[in-house]
Amino acid sequence: MREFDLLRHIYEHNDALGAIVEIPPGDDMAMVRFGNQPILAAVDQLVAGRHVELDRVPLALVGRKAITRCLSDVAAMAARPIASLAAATLPPGFGEANANALFDAMHETAQRYGSPIIGGDIAFHADDSHPLVCSVTVLAVTSGSNRSPITRSGAKPGDRLYVTGVLGGSYQPDGGGHHLTFEPRMDEAILLSELLGEQLHAMIDLSDGLGRDAAHIAERSRVRIVIDAARVPCRDGLDWRRAMSDGEDYELCFAAGGTVPNMLGSTPVTEIGWIEPRGDESESMLIVKEGDRAHDGADMGWEHHS
Amino acid sequence: MREFDLLRHIYEHNDALGAIVEIPPGDDMAMVRFGNQPILAAVDQLVAGRHVELDRVPLALVGRKAITRCLSDVAAMAARPIASLAAATLPPGFGEANANALFDAMHETAQRYGSPIIGGDIAFHADDSHPLVCSVTVLAVTSGSNRSPITRSGAKPGDRLYVTGVLGGSYQPDGGGHHLTFEPRMDEAILLSELLGEQLHAMIDLSDGLGRDAAHIAERSRVRIVIDAARVPCRDGLDWRRAMSDGEDYELCFAAGGTVPNMLGSTPVTEIGWIEPRGDESESMLIVKEGDRAHDGADMGWEHHS
Repeated sequence: MREFDLLRHIYEHNDALGAIVEIPPGDDMAMVRFGNQPILAAVDQLVAGRHVELDRVPLALVGRKAITRCLSDVAAMAARPIASLAAATLPPGFGEANANALFDAMHETAQRYGSPIIGGDIAFHADDSHPLVCSVTVLAVTSGSNRSPITRSGAKPGDRLYVTGVLGGSYQPDGGGHHLTFEPRMDEAILLSELLGEQLHAMIDLSDGLGRDAAHIAERSRVRIVIDAARVPCRDGLDWRRAMSDGEDYELCFAAGGTVPNMLGSTPVTEIGWIEPRGDESESMLIVKEGDRAHDGADMGWEHHS
Repeated sequence: MREFDLLRHIYEHNDALGAIVEIPPGDDMAMVRFGNQPILAAVDQLVAGRHVELDRVPLALVGRKAITRCLSDVAAMAARPIASLAAATLPPGFGEANANALFDAMHETAQRYGSPIIGGDIAFHADDSHPLVCSVTVLAVTSGSNRSPITRSGAKPGDRLYVTGVLGGSYQPDGGGHHLTFEPRMDEAILLSELLGEQLHAMIDLSDGLGRDAAHIAERSRVRIVIDAARVPCRDGLDWRRAMSDGEDYELCFAAGGTVPNMLGSTPVTEIGWIEPRGDESESMLIVKEGDRAHDGADMGWEHHS
């Protein structure tokens, strides 16, 4: 059972959604029209033992991550968050002080990023052997009245491919690392959208790893992506395979024409590849060039499955 | 650790939410304004072993309940659902066929009630000993351009108190029962709102039991509610204590002036009590009169705690 197979089954229902759904499931956020107002929405979960180690990570950072990983989806659309809803299923012995610490961290993080928690739900597991599960839904709007959100599906042959920040090693073996403290790239995304306008063609945030996530752009844009291994910005001397596979980077990956700055505020931007027409469907949609060699990069990343 | 104590802590943050939040956490749904458009939102969870027994209930009904219990919150506001987001954390060995059956049931239920699933997330537990956790967020709009949603806080002394349907015994000892097959009272709520207009003062859906849920109306409206035990409509010969305590009824309880019909479509409406001014804070806000005796009913219901 692989997450992507399950998601593909879900996307088969998209045709039935109706006209008010302007961006159906399959992008970083969906978009639905309420009257004249388009609203973006996404949901993300944080599962203890999978996305965070409760025995090694302070609850303040657990609550922070539950919110920020959802805000990274908002950044990927170049949108602005408006409000959040947070739900948690707790082990019955979690303790009131711990529960309050968790919710306070979620509240403070959501508030700081302009996405106050407007609704919530608390449930309890049957016994204490089961882990904390948080889910956060974020609602957002496009950043300007005439702007459309940036989807995964607009990359064009001739575009260059870019990433923000450095990649790899975000989830340390001891449970710590960048995944607990990252800043969702919302300001960078909106600045980019303002600078590039129509030339910013496709964007995604990097949660599963550059290989898998860039492949989502390639698949939905029906193009091939070529990444130059030597250009991938790696954290702390990691090699490009680790940088493309580790996941949990929460950086932006985007395809654009025009002139892209090499800094967005204090965040570096690196050109790592380019977009080609998709040839034979049997060829990989994501190629990594390492000198003379070409690797299939579409499976490089963290697959959520059993 | 009691759910209500945790929620009370969360509501302390409400003052910081800002002006766009028109109904803060603490009602059946929150309301936030996007441009000129008010949007209602709520999240609810379904935890295997707590809200549903996976080994005894078909997945089609599990998925149905994950959606309908959220739509019951929409009914409580007399609102109309527009879209849903669904997230699930699965045991890794749940199986693709089972996962698809669950998501198909959620999709079909959401679609049937006009609230298509526009976004989702799938995560996996670390091992198969942990239970399925679903969370569903529903987005809704008010049912007419000039209508406000019906909150818990508008009950007035002199109002009569009503419930739809019959209460108690919804969650059978074998895991079956009304809680798996109920129709969320959305049409009844909107009809009621149209019939009564400004005379429909406060409403809640009955999930924790009539005692606890009616007490939420009393608390937020700063009134006392008196329920006549003999008038409580009980399922299958249950007594009024069971009917007020069992929970999972997903019926409407509302306070209104004016003339209330005794049927809404094919759904019966029963007058069960009245609203009085709140006297001394030390007295109970929910009294059940049984002949000459008066019981404190505010704790009658299903408390979600350890």
